[in-house]
Amino acid sequence: MINVLWAGTERNWSLFEPDLKAGFQRAGLDVDLRTAFADPAQVDYLIFSPDGPLSDLSAFENVKLVQSTWAGVEAIVTNKTLTQPLARMVDHGLSEGMRDYVVGNVMRHHLNTDRFATAKPGEWLSDLCPPLARDTTVGFLGLGALGLACANTIAYLGFNTLGWSRREKSVATFQCLHGDAGLQQVLKQADIVVTLLPLTTDTENLLNADALSKMKRGASIINPGRGPLIDDDALISALKSGQISQATLDVFRTEPLPADHPYWQMPNVLVTPHVAADTRAKTASQVVVENIRRSEAGDPVLYLVDRTSGY
Amino acid sequence: MINVLWAGTERNWSLFEPDLKAGFQRAGLDVDLRTAFADPAQVDYLIFSPDGPLSDLSAFENVKLVQSTWAGVEAIVTNKTLTQPLARMVDHGLSEGMRDYVVGNVMRHHLNTDRFATAKPGEWLSDLCPPLARDTTVGFLGLGALGLACANTIAYLGFNTLGWSRREKSVATFQCLHGDAGLQQVLKQADIVVTLLPLTTDTENLLNADALSKMKRGASIINPGRGPLIDDDALISALKSGQISQATLDVFRTEPLPADHPYWQMPNVLVTPHVAADTRAKTASQVVVENIRRSEAGDPVLYLVDRTSGY
Repeated sequence: MINVLWAGTERNWSLFEPDLKAGFQRAGLDVDLRTAFADPAQVDYLIFSPDGPLSDLSAFENVKLVQSTWAGVEAIVTNKTLTQPLARMVDHGLSEGMRDYVVGNVMRHHLNTDRFATAKPGEWLSDLCPPLARDTTVGFLGLGALGLACANTIAYLGFNTLGWSRREKSVATFQCLHGDAGLQQVLKQADIVVTLLPLTTDTENLLNADALSKMKRGASIINPGRGPLIDDDALISALKSGQISQATLDVFRTEPLPADHPYWQMPNVLVTPHVAADTRAKTASQVVVENIRRSEAGDPVLYLVDRTSGY
Repeated sequence: MINVLWAGTERNWSLFEPDLKAGFQRAGLDVDLRTAFADPAQVDYLIFSPDGPLSDLSAFENVKLVQSTWAGVEAIVTNKTLTQPLARMVDHGLSEGMRDYVVGNVMRHHLNTDRFATAKPGEWLSDLCPPLARDTTVGFLGLGALGLACANTIAYLGFNTLGWSRREKSVATFQCLHGDAGLQQVLKQADIVVTLLPLTTDTENLLNADALSKMKRGASIINPGRGPLIDDDALISALKSGQISQATLDVFRTEPLPADHPYWQMPNVLVTPHVAADTRAKTASQVVVENIRRSEAGDPVLYLVDRTSGY
């Protein structure tokens, strides 16, 4: 019998429980899945999210793997009581959802949809015929699993695509740049910048006043990554001056975004409520089951977090 | 010397002239390209659009090919003075522009972007997390060059994709239906219907009150094809009742769409000013040059119009 403790939110428990139980059964795993065990030392696996009931994990001394239900790990790796092996969630549903969000909003910026949507009756803006995708440059900051999936799709759709990561990467389908010089080049060339970086001390406020001023005048930003990647005051100024034409933001320093935050009132900002990459119970449960199966079989676990780099 | 008469609009002349002249030169064709010749019988090729200066083409008795700059031919084939071989425009720029428009607006409907865009300050609609593309069905009415290009891309993006054409077609990437039974099936199953049919007596008012009533409740419509494919009064009723949740319309019976037309005022209608597939001078000029080169070399001309079927 394998003891698995659900330490995610109550709401997600109702969504995940049936899919997890069915998945364990299909995988031939004899699992006791619960939201509580009398003795923490009994627990073999923890399914965990930082917004769940547990913060001190030190008593779970026999846990072989902490499987997060979150893609981002910055709220987890800072927990000093978490010393067990940690896997983050890389969920197909999550990357599919992110791809939809990025494609949809890159196209919305590219097609200038908001301008047409706010036309007055009879205002026939046929001279605003959009450019072709090949004439629009989209820059991706961050080439992790989500950034790569999105950038590949945007390249497939014919956009001139640039990718940037801190460390050197190479991809067949678009040009990858790295380091500080590479970042400057993406900022200078991109018509649309998409931020899909993890949040670390290096990436916090990456898009500050200086970076925004180096972008093309009238370029736009899509942030489905992490709220603190952007210096909000600097972005608000740039949106007011026209340096940045438009921003689509899914993540914020405080969520839900407070009703009095200026973003809500700005005509060139679309606020979405952290829906770009919600973990989906059905597809995420498959990842949890597969990792427990691997661990029990002695196979390498997927998506282990490297604590030294923070992701 | 090959005599080519430009009989398109004056505005397009200024856009096309440099690209055409450069193209003829690159192709090694000795062309006299003008907007007028003293004697119509001198003219070898006509570059034509129905909104240009010519309506009576009977005097152009030596013309080997009338090359239209329009993709649609319904405004041309009804011209009884046009008896010369006629080629329509199949322009990569045009199909790329159409693909951008369709992808962008399918995603906009799928992601429910307008609902987020109209949220009140502080209205955090995180329960409206969109479905995955695989859980949304997109039906294409019309599988010509544009319909196929768009449907293939939508299938690549993971949407459950259905195509319909009057005559049977087969495509590897998505399910194709045909005939009246096929049409009923697409109407019944699609969450989003995209109309890319040519306008003929068979397709006029294809989306009438009866067809709209057979669609899924809350389904939506994107029409970048031809205005008269839709019965406007029926669509307005369906949009008011909620039978149709949303419509994105690029083409209309009267263009520009008059300022007093109800579509302008409806919150669930996006009017775009016939920008989905504007002919692009650069890419369209390549098609014109290639067809004149083919004709002169005795090679088969591309995109000849079959007058009996009307497209």
